Amino acid sequence: MSKNDFQVYPLIDKKKRGEKLTAAEIKWFIQRYTDQQIPDYQMSAMLMAMFIRGMDTAETAALTDAMLNSGECLSFPGRNVIDKHSTGGVGDKASFVLAPIASAAGVRVPMIAGRGLGHTGGTVDKIEAVHGFKTNLSLSEFSDKLKSEGLVLIGQTPEIAPADRLLYALRDVTATIDSIPLITASIMSKKLAEGANGIVFDIKCGTGAFMRTPKSARALAKSLIETSTRFKKKAVALVTDMNQPLGLEVGHSNELIESIETLKGRGPADLTELSLHLAAHMIHMAGVQKSFPKALAKAREMVSSGKALAEFRKLLSSQGGDVRVIDDYSLLPLASERTAVTASAAGHVKMFDNTLIGLLLIELGGGRRSKTDTIDHGVGFTFHKKIGDQVKKGEPIFTVIHHPHQKDLVKSIRARFLKDALTMSKTKVRTPKLILDQLP
Amino acid sequence: MSKNDFQVYPLIDKKKRGEKLTAAEIKWFIQRYTDQQIPDYQMSAMLMAMFIRGMDTAETAALTDAMLNSGECLSFPGRNVIDKHSTGGVGDKASFVLAPIASAAGVRVPMIAGRGLGHTGGTVDKIEAVHGFKTNLSLSEFSDKLKSEGLVLIGQTPEIAPADRLLYALRDVTATIDSIPLITASIMSKKLAEGANGIVFDIKCGTGAFMRTPKSARALAKSLIETSTRFKKKAVALVTDMNQPLGLEVGHSNELIESIETLKGRGPADLTELSLHLAAHMIHMAGVQKSFPKALAKAREMVSSGKALAEFRKLLSSQGGDVRVIDDYSLLPLASERTAVTASAAGHVKMFDNTLIGLLLIELGGGRRSKTDTIDHGVGFTFHKKIGDQVKKGEPIFTVIHHPHQKDLVKSIRARFLKDALTMSKTKVRTPKLILDQLP
Repeated sequence: MSKNDFQVYPLIDKKKRGEKLTAAEIKWFIQRYTDQQIPDYQMSAMLMAMFIRGMDTAETAALTDAMLNSGECLSFPGRNVIDKHSTGGVGDKASFVLAPIASAAGVRVPMIAGRGLGHTGGTVDKIEAVHGFKTNLSLSEFSDKLKSEGLVLIGQTPEIAPADRLLYALRDVTATIDSIPLITASIMSKKLAEGANGIVFDIKCGTGAFMRTPKSARALAKSLIETSTRFKKKAVALVTDMNQPLGLEVGHSNELIESIETLKGRGPADLTELSLHLAAHMIHMAGVQKSFPKALAKAREMVSSGKALAEFRKLLSSQGGDVRVIDDYSLLPLASERTAVTASAAGHVKMFDNTLIGLLLIELGGGRRSKTDTIDHGVGFTFHKKIGDQVKKGEPIFTVIHHPHQKDLVKSIRARFLKDALTMSKTKVRTPKLILDQLP
Repeated sequence: MSKNDFQVYPLIDKKKRGEKLTAAEIKWFIQRYTDQQIPDYQMSAMLMAMFIRGMDTAETAALTDAMLNSGECLSFPGRNVIDKHSTGGVGDKASFVLAPIASAAGVRVPMIAGRGLGHTGGTVDKIEAVHGFKTNLSLSEFSDKLKSEGLVLIGQTPEIAPADRLLYALRDVTATIDSIPLITASIMSKKLAEGANGIVFDIKCGTGAFMRTPKSARALAKSLIETSTRFKKKAVALVTDMNQPLGLEVGHSNELIESIETLKGRGPADLTELSLHLAAHMIHMAGVQKSFPKALAKAREMVSSGKALAEFRKLLSSQGGDVRVIDDYSLLPLASERTAVTASAAGHVKMFDNTLIGLLLIELGGGRRSKTDTIDHGVGFTFHKKIGDQVKKGEPIFTVIHHPHQKDLVKSIRARFLKDALTMSKTKVRTPKLILDQLP
């Protein structure tokens, strides 16, 4: 038996008993699975054992490495190539704001973004509301554009970490998604393959996030930073609130409009603050500014000077998008009807079920129920009230942007929102903190 | 959603988090899996979650019930229909002795026995050394024979607990075999379907058993008794030693000869004692005798009177076997060569690796490496020494029964036996207890 000739059964058995797997054992198992020499039913038993017994940092790094090396890996020279990753949420359009800010400040930003997953929206789906914008560039076009433009945004490609795609599909049907080591390896294998030299993580936390509690969000943040460090990448993670939509818009075209407004300096406070902070960490990490306060000032300057907006215009143009949308929002697909959902009693907004809000958007057509569904970029929600706001009886809480034939659906969404997605309080409610923690 | 309309993912998720599944949930999951509506990869994730998180008595009973009801169930009237189940070991031929004893005493014994599994031998494989003996009777023939003869012995049939067969095959490749609730449900679903009204369990414990420690053997015994009680079946379990072969013979024809010798009153002490005890529990449970000591005396009387041997003769005859083997062992297939393995130094036998002994028999041809292998009934081992025995240098420890062409193989078996399967001690070793515990 050669050094790396393992057997499937003893390795599953080992993890089942709670022992640690070696890097060679993990590498062998993932390679064999990706080569279809280990069937799904053995991989799913292993995944469940990994899930319940847990994996330490060394095992997580080995899993990341095995998945990373299942596909192509890019590498860009220069410490100023910095990526950003968000764990996903509702109304999270910060990428459209922070990437142009960072790029305008001299950071090179290679973004391979996701589509909507579960109740969360996807950056790639949102940018595709812009007519002509191409997200399906090849990896060599991606590399070339990063070098020539300093900013590029594409969707997942089959060459990057194919093992992750296989494993993700299996985890999705075997209840092994919400494991910190498995999530870490999935994120890190893709991020490392994209060739950035530093990563800023936005770990969402709350009713609209995969991590519901600050404790689990911090644990994921810690795991991502430890794994980044093992792979000699700089990393910072912010744990941020996802108990309500980020900004006021939830949808596709309307989120893009809100992002452009924010780049114009007219965005909502929470989206502005989060985008500036994440961009500032990228600017600082890239070495453009020596301190975080200076980087934050630089980020603000990129907005106020209009340089960030110019970068966004350049991004659209570079990838074939209609740049006129920046000045004429009517060029974006938007449904014609507006129906306000109003408060049935006075009070203070205490809590949103933010996952339900994401699911209601999917029902309206602004998301996929199955992989082959197409997305209606024109529907969405505009929120008028956020947690902590006072509401009078009859005052609108949010407006549904919909098509004329969707009136019955809007009624049903209204009823379910008021019954299940909104909690009101008779007494005052404190405005929640947006940035809950920063690691390391 | 109707009352019993569950979904796969939330049920796996529930067990993964360590919660208890309801009987309806378990029933639904097993039914769907048996109907091939749940794929193997989801079932194996569930099995691993069940394995690591455990199952309580109610869940184990529900799993048993679901598996039991996946196939046909027999039912025999009368409290005197009693079955016996052994968890399997090396040299375990007690069934051939105890079943005729119990039957001669008035117990009706419906035996559906197994083939060799892993390193352990199988009752069905052993009885097939008798020319003409049919083990593949249909379930209705099985029922008829029990009524007419009071004793019947067949192999597993596809009609009994098909879910168990599917699950067992999956557990076998996903490292989820050695779980007490899963073993319990597998055994009980088959035993309950066979229609007995009481069951005597022989839980093997030691180096040749699936349960290595008295603690785990007792836990399995407890689980089997609790599940039997839930299904309103009488049950007794003996925890018995399997750190060395039971009796002196390991093989097929030679084990059968030893069994017949035991029925003739000339068997080795351990096999005789265990068979009498197990038979006595069956006799007592059937209500033939009011107390266990009286049942034990009755069992002894069945041997000394020759009535048990007559029952065995009747069994062979009833199922088409050559009854002449009882008086002429040369009618059984037996290899021609005998090679003694002798002690390389004086001492006392301290320990056997009994699993390795079982595996060495398989190498000799007396077992299956894969499902399609045929068994050589004529090879085997005859032990001359047992744990606690004193051995002089050069004295034979056991004899290999083999074919002329197997001389090199015998050399290799000898070397590995002396190196790995036998531990000697310079000081005296106590003879181990055979029956370690009795439950309830």
